[in-house]
Amino acid sequence: MSPRPTINASVSPKGTLETLSQREVQQLSEAGSGSVYQLFRQCALAILNTGARIDNAKTILDAYRDFEVRIHQQDRGVRLELVNAPADAFVDGEMIAGTREMLFSALRDIVYTANELDDQRVDLHTSQGITDYVFHLLRNARTLRPGVEPKIVVCWGGHSISTEEYKYTKKVGHELGLRNLDVCTGCGPGVMKGPMKGATIGHAKQRHHGGRYLGLTEPGIIAAEAPNPIVNELVILPDIEKRLEAFVRVGHGIIIFPGGVGTAEEFLYLLGILMHPDNQDLPFPLVLTGPRSASAYFEQLHAFVGATLGEAAQRRYQIIVDNPAEVARHMAQGLKEVKQFRRERNDAFHFNWLLKIDVGFQRPFDPTHEHMAGLQLSTDLPPHELAANLRRAFSGIVAGNVKEKGVRAIEEFGPYEIHGEPALMRRLDELLHAFVKQHRMKLPGGAAYEPCYRVVEG
Amino acid sequence: MSPRPTINASVSPKGTLETLSQREVQQLSEAGSGSVYQLFRQCALAILNTGARIDNAKTILDAYRDFEVRIHQQDRGVRLELVNAPADAFVDGEMIAGTREMLFSALRDIVYTANELDDQRVDLHTSQGITDYVFHLLRNARTLRPGVEPKIVVCWGGHSISTEEYKYTKKVGHELGLRNLDVCTGCGPGVMKGPMKGATIGHAKQRHHGGRYLGLTEPGIIAAEAPNPIVNELVILPDIEKRLEAFVRVGHGIIIFPGGVGTAEEFLYLLGILMHPDNQDLPFPLVLTGPRSASAYFEQLHAFVGATLGEAAQRRYQIIVDNPAEVARHMAQGLKEVKQFRRERNDAFHFNWLLKIDVGFQRPFDPTHEHMAGLQLSTDLPPHELAANLRRAFSGIVAGNVKEKGVRAIEEFGPYEIHGEPALMRRLDELLHAFVKQHRMKLPGGAAYEPCYRVVEG
Amino acid sequence: MSPRPTINASVSPKGTLETLSQREVQQLSEAGSGSVYQLFRQCALAILNTGARIDNAKTILDAYRDFEVRIHQQDRGVRLELVNAPADAFVDGEMIAGTREMLFSALRDIVYTANELDDQRVDLHTSQGITDYVFHLLRNARTLRPGVEPKIVVCWGGHSISTEEYKYTKKVGHELGLRNLDVCTGCGPGVMKGPMKGATIGHAKQRHHGGRYLGLTEPGIIAAEAPNPIVNELVILPDIEKRLEAFVRVGHGIIIFPGGVGTAEEFLYLLGILMHPDNQDLPFPLVLTGPRSASAYFEQLHAFVGATLGEAAQRRYQIIVDNPAEVARHMAQGLKEVKQFRRERNDAFHFNWLLKIDVGFQRPFDPTHEHMAGLQLSTDLPPHELAANLRRAFSGIVAGNVKEKGVRAIEEFGPYEIHGEPALMRRLDELLHAFVKQHRMKLPGGAAYEPCYRVVEG
Amino acid sequence: MSPRPTINASVSPKGTLETLSQREVQQLSEAGSGSVYQLFRQCALAILNTGARIDNAKTILDAYRDFEVRIHQQDRGVRLELVNAPADAFVDGEMIAGTREMLFSALRDIVYTANELDDQRVDLHTSQGITDYVFHLLRNARTLRPGVEPKIVVCWGGHSISTEEYKYTKKVGHELGLRNLDVCTGCGPGVMKGPMKGATIGHAKQRHHGGRYLGLTEPGIIAAEAPNPIVNELVILPDIEKRLEAFVRVGHGIIIFPGGVGTAEEFLYLLGILMHPDNQDLPFPLVLTGPRSASAYFEQLHAFVGATLGEAAQRRYQIIVDNPAEVARHMAQGLKEVKQFRRERNDAFHFNWLLKIDVGFQRPFDPTHEHMAGLQLSTDLPPHELAANLRRAFSGIVAGNVKEKGVRAIEEFGPYEIHGEPALMRRLDELLHAFVKQHRMKLPGGAAYEPCYRVVEG
Repeated sequence: MSPRPTINASVSPKGTLETLSQREVQQLSEAGSGSVYQLFRQCALAILNTGARIDNAKTILDAYRDFEVRIHQQDRGVRLELVNAPADAFVDGEMIAGTREMLFSALRDIVYTANELDDQRVDLHTSQGITDYVFHLLRNARTLRPGVEPKIVVCWGGHSISTEEYKYTKKVGHELGLRNLDVCTGCGPGVMKGPMKGATIGHAKQRHHGGRYLGLTEPGIIAAEAPNPIVNELVILPDIEKRLEAFVRVGHGIIIFPGGVGTAEEFLYLLGILMHPDNQDLPFPLVLTGPRSASAYFEQLHAFVGATLGEAAQRRYQIIVDNPAEVARHMAQGLKEVKQFRRERNDAFHFNWLLKIDVGFQRPFDPTHEHMAGLQLSTDLPPHELAANLRRAFSGIVAGNVKEKGVRAIEEFGPYEIHGEPALMRRLDELLHAFVKQHRMKLPGGAAYEPCYRVVEG
Repeated sequence: MSPRPTINASVSPKGTLETLSQREVQQLSEAGSGSVYQLFRQCALAILNTGARIDNAKTILDAYRDFEVRIHQQDRGVRLELVNAPADAFVDGEMIAGTREMLFSALRDIVYTANELDDQRVDLHTSQGITDYVFHLLRNARTLRPGVEPKIVVCWGGHSISTEEYKYTKKVGHELGLRNLDVCTGCGPGVMKGPMKGATIGHAKQRHHGGRYLGLTEPGIIAAEAPNPIVNELVILPDIEKRLEAFVRVGHGIIIFPGGVGTAEEFLYLLGILMHPDNQDLPFPLVLTGPRSASAYFEQLHAFVGATLGEAAQRRYQIIVDNPAEVARHMAQGLKEVKQFRRERNDAFHFNWLLKIDVGFQRPFDPTHEHMAGLQLSTDLPPHELAANLRRAFSGIVAGNVKEKGVRAIEEFGPYEIHGEPALMRRLDELLHAFVKQHRMKLPGGAAYEPCYRVVEG
Repeated sequence: MSPRPTINASVSPKGTLETLSQREVQQLSEAGSGSVYQLFRQCALAILNTGARIDNAKTILDAYRDFEVRIHQQDRGVRLELVNAPADAFVDGEMIAGTREMLFSALRDIVYTANELDDQRVDLHTSQGITDYVFHLLRNARTLRPGVEPKIVVCWGGHSISTEEYKYTKKVGHELGLRNLDVCTGCGPGVMKGPMKGATIGHAKQRHHGGRYLGLTEPGIIAAEAPNPIVNELVILPDIEKRLEAFVRVGHGIIIFPGGVGTAEEFLYLLGILMHPDNQDLPFPLVLTGPRSASAYFEQLHAFVGATLGEAAQRRYQIIVDNPAEVARHMAQGLKEVKQFRRERNDAFHFNWLLKIDVGFQRPFDPTHEHMAGLQLSTDLPPHELAANLRRAFSGIVAGNVKEKGVRAIEEFGPYEIHGEPALMRRLDELLHAFVKQHRMKLPGGAAYEPCYRVVEG
Repeated sequence: MSPRPTINASVSPKGTLETLSQREVQQLSEAGSGSVYQLFRQCALAILNTGARIDNAKTILDAYRDFEVRIHQQDRGVRLELVNAPADAFVDGEMIAGTREMLFSALRDIVYTANELDDQRVDLHTSQGITDYVFHLLRNARTLRPGVEPKIVVCWGGHSISTEEYKYTKKVGHELGLRNLDVCTGCGPGVMKGPMKGATIGHAKQRHHGGRYLGLTEPGIIAAEAPNPIVNELVILPDIEKRLEAFVRVGHGIIIFPGGVGTAEEFLYLLGILMHPDNQDLPFPLVLTGPRSASAYFEQLHAFVGATLGEAAQRRYQIIVDNPAEVARHMAQGLKEVKQFRRERNDAFHFNWLLKIDVGFQRPFDPTHEHMAGLQLSTDLPPHELAANLRRAFSGIVAGNVKEKGVRAIEEFGPYEIHGEPALMRRLDELLHAFVKQHRMKLPGGAAYEPCYRVVEG
């Protein structure tokens, strides 16, 4: 690989108040090889590649091996010194302002996370403690704005979708923007970018300045899914479970576009929560949508939900095919109900405190072969528990497909074995095969898909 | 043609100060059939069709025959009552904010223009008087902002160009936006839209709020070239000559993209001005650019200029092929010189007072057969006068191609005859044929092009 | 008199858009001795003395005989070059920002006024024409803000009052400010300053940024009553009648504090208008107020109104003694009715179009001895006509007391004779004597008051 | 004492982001009698009395015995329910916005302080730890703004001074405001209010919006010195030493006006720090100023410093008598040096990290009879240590005069005995007698001063 052009530069935050204490600067800068520093370096590199189309963290890290970032405290606050930074992040020698902003958001979140844990401030043993932790991270990032009516629409779906599907997400975003709604995604390409891009145009038409394009990510994924340049608020949550909780507590409604196993995981995570008896009356607008060509995909998902979690689960969402304006109207209507509900219950608009999330959804699932084999998959379970376990199964498959640790485990021990009730296992197998057939289980390199799991009945 | 969906609505300006006196409201509203009312109705209809892809004023006017607009003065200022307005201008029953803004800009400009003339305030007999008039119109529209450094880049070119060329204009706009430059165009589709769209993304990446997308139009063209929805400042000048003068006095640099005869007219208008001896030392960055595929187009134009106006004329512009970043860098550099020059001469940043425009360029040219036949086209003339006459020739051809009056004259009397020096006439003929061959002389309906002129040597 | 310290300086407008055309700059600058230039120079000098306690235009003009101001058009708009300007307007060599702002407001208004008249744009022969003229001046000064609910409270009263009365006006202003109301005065010292000062503190406590302190003045009075430094919007109307009309059309309610004959003139002007049959149902909150010590003053005024204009006139105002909070509450309540009324009639919030002002109130009254002697003062007249004539009588006395032309006429021909119905004349005489006794008819120099009029019964 | 009018109300923060987590709300609200609740209630009561002239915490607390405040988390953030609140804090039933703002500032600081300590996040054993704590409190209060040049001027002096002195502080504030400098004080009446009031007018004249009037207080003093209503940023530090450290780290220069023993304590605190060898080259503009009538006061202080700490200490400040403009100019010049110095050393503008503060100045001094008697007061000590001990002596006298604990100790054990070097003791005695003579040692009740100390030579 030929060397890429790089630039050395020194940048300061602009307009934001990223003021660090000397202790905090020291924490970051002293340990050139420390884990906090490594984390920040990696996120910084991903951000500096914003807009570049590289689907692979390792590629980026390799391409800029000698990239370095140093942190200084100085007269006007913090300054970052960048050595051998990707040249694409600069225009005529000056860093693009949005990139600079995200760089300091990353600094903020990583320092904050480290401090919180350092000080043993956080109680990660209880559900309440984890929720408080997520709340504090979001508050520190100024994501929570109390005076604002519910209008954050989370968009989930694949980061690698067809052109037709991508265009469709832009159209939906455009309709959301025309209704002055904000967009929150996982902040990479594909479904994470299209709705934001569409909303930008919609907001511009409505002369709606201050539209929010909120990107929630985590250090493990940011390199592979670099924030797209439209994201104007970036928050880095420490892991996938905190990130998912942030999505459902900060978002007021969710739209699910076509995606792969990861999207299915998110869908089941959400269904599992909404099926919890405590959440029975809580309004949460949820729309599955895509262009005409994606209707098979949604039918399969819908059938799978019906067969596994039942009709009650199906009632928690609406499938709308090929009708962006209708999606936006449905969402706008749902948000009104959310507002009404929270007002009646005196819940915050900016954080969904009333949503009950079982600790099982908050704790990281470690997809070892043993854990995967031990998952209970039976319709005897209460639906929300079955949903939780199905979510874990999908999570394991994602890990086995693309995450470093998972891939190595598969190489060593062969495919995961997933056991369960025969009828349920057949349904699962069908769904996963359909994903493969629809090219929704692409591997980073683009090779033909080799399943990392084996469905075992009983 | 099937009836289009319409809406009745009542709208007020928001955040703008469109305060009318009772006399002004009366002027507008009393004469349901008066010419001022008709003008406003027509502009309003064009604006309500913003974004719609209709290339023909008559089509729009026919489609909404029963559209009406009434003006009321009320507690919170002015209110417009719209009857049978195009439904596309509304989202869930509410008018899109940008559309509303443009509607009131049109009202402002048309009322102001009418008042100025009414009061005999304007002296249209002298060059200075015309310039003052243009200045007053722009000032009234709040286009002139004294505290701002030169950064308005005017983009000229065809409204109907190839997809490749359109994408190229977006890329150039993107690079302009990344350098925080503003874009000013004729406010329709094609080259009038692409650079604005690109700049929007560039500005967003630079977190540059308050980017200006200035659209200058005239009542005669607005219906055919409805303002694209990105335009966030719309000014309606009374005729083509005032509009051209507004472009060159308010813009700090100009980029010319591929276009047809209209673009050639604009190019010659500008060259004619810049060739004037008084403007010899005045910096005015001028770039001709397009994708690789358009290089032939620019070579022909360049050769034509060389053969007719000479090398000195060629030195006033730079041709850059297929290099958007270079275009933006060149422009940014040129703007610095403009700033330096104006500072030294104590000229306003916001209005190019020092630019000498001969009254011949300010007075409307009426393209009758007689006038066309009488144009002096000879290299014996001083270059800036020859440029003026060539500009008139192109202007006549545009009229003969698409303007109502011109088309009717051609139908009645046959093609225009253009006389002139044989060598020059051959060059002109070649250029026009090249335009036809490159499909740059498309007629609205899309029929094969039937020339409206005949080049006659001598 | 010892020479005062002066400074030479060059200033540009900041943040305002005072963009002039070359013709406008020329108009101002060419005629070093022209009347427009003289007018501007005089206003500029008054503004540069803002805050200085000099009660006499002539003193200021004499003290800065060699003061000059030159106008240049330059890169960043207009620039003023000041020679031998009062040093008090500067801090460490830089002009105080508020002073600079007012300087450019004066420039704006004087240029605009001159242009309007120059272009014969204005029809000063009809009532409607005069009102339109006032409207255009205010609109050009950006005083008219359509999106704002009625909250401009005009405060009238003496510019030279007792300390106790001054403190009282501050308290009333404080209560107005606490209710987020804006204050408009004649922009000099005394009652013109106290309410603004109090409102500043009230607004600060309410964190109400953008409070308006509107000063309306005229060239003939600005030197004697230099705008106090709290005024943050200054408008210079061409003469007293335009200024009075501006007060009653732009203000939503009026508070009258103690004052002298000038205040009585304003009070009768307003009553004359409100008594017009066309204004019978039009709500216009009007409060007369002062500290306990001023209660005699108001009782006399009240009795005078009762005896001359009758009970109906008395019903148009409310006297509140020594109760600032009650004044503000009463005003706030009255403004609600104004809002309701204008909404129902679809009248503008920002300009009281519906208020009928007879042309007699709009035309300047020239207080010659002949005119004064010819005033019809009889209870046989309709009350609004009698009010108009009483207003003229007071206007003449003000002129005879302090205006150059009036003072000279008195010197030459002796006191004015005012004829009228005996009972009415007695009332008038009593009132005027009371003013003298209460030291409300002080002359600039502080000498004992020598009446400039003689009341003649019959 | 007759009952005072009270109001029940429910208020929400406006525009600020006081978002609390459920745990934080719980902490506050659960313990109706807990210490955090008591602290907040007491501060809230002081704030609701803003502007009231009561010099005694106990009086306020007694007057509103049945005042209660309850905290709720709700849709739009936090809501406070107030029962039997002082009616003066409301206008027509609505709480004054500035009061509301301060109420939520108090909530923010008290919750934050409690959390930090709760979580053992703070290391109060080291100098660095204490400094970090102060930094975090100020950062959380958004007091630290990195992009801003040094311009915070701290004003110290008595809260109960003569009218002449009070007017002088307003004039100095006016001159500071005219130079766009910000004012920081201890946020009560007297010297804590005058400069802010003057600066308000200066800022208004300069059209300087966003002037900062920073009040730093502590729970122990806020009831006696309720924030004056001009304070637009209120921070409550946990104790006197943190508050003093906040003053010298956040302020860029300090002006000392006349005051009593408390002011002398502050002066010696600052001198002690500036005399530390590490701070030798650090610029810190320090001006002592007052009207002509206060010149004796400053001469005595100056002589005392000369006799005890020596000439080097005298060189750290400048005495300017009766010249407000000169004070402001001197300060403005000093701030330029501060800026230059911090830029060269890369120190933050917003926090004086480089200032060395010995831990002795950071730790609370408990003024028992034993500690007071044990103070080493000898010129044999290095000047900065002697300054520290003199500071403690003054601190004890303040406590013996007005603080509850100190007053009780004096009642029980008689006056403090202060031992030391004879010459030094005489100087101290003279200074304290001068304070008494000048009525600068007034007791709250206004009784004749009965010394709480006895100076014992040797």
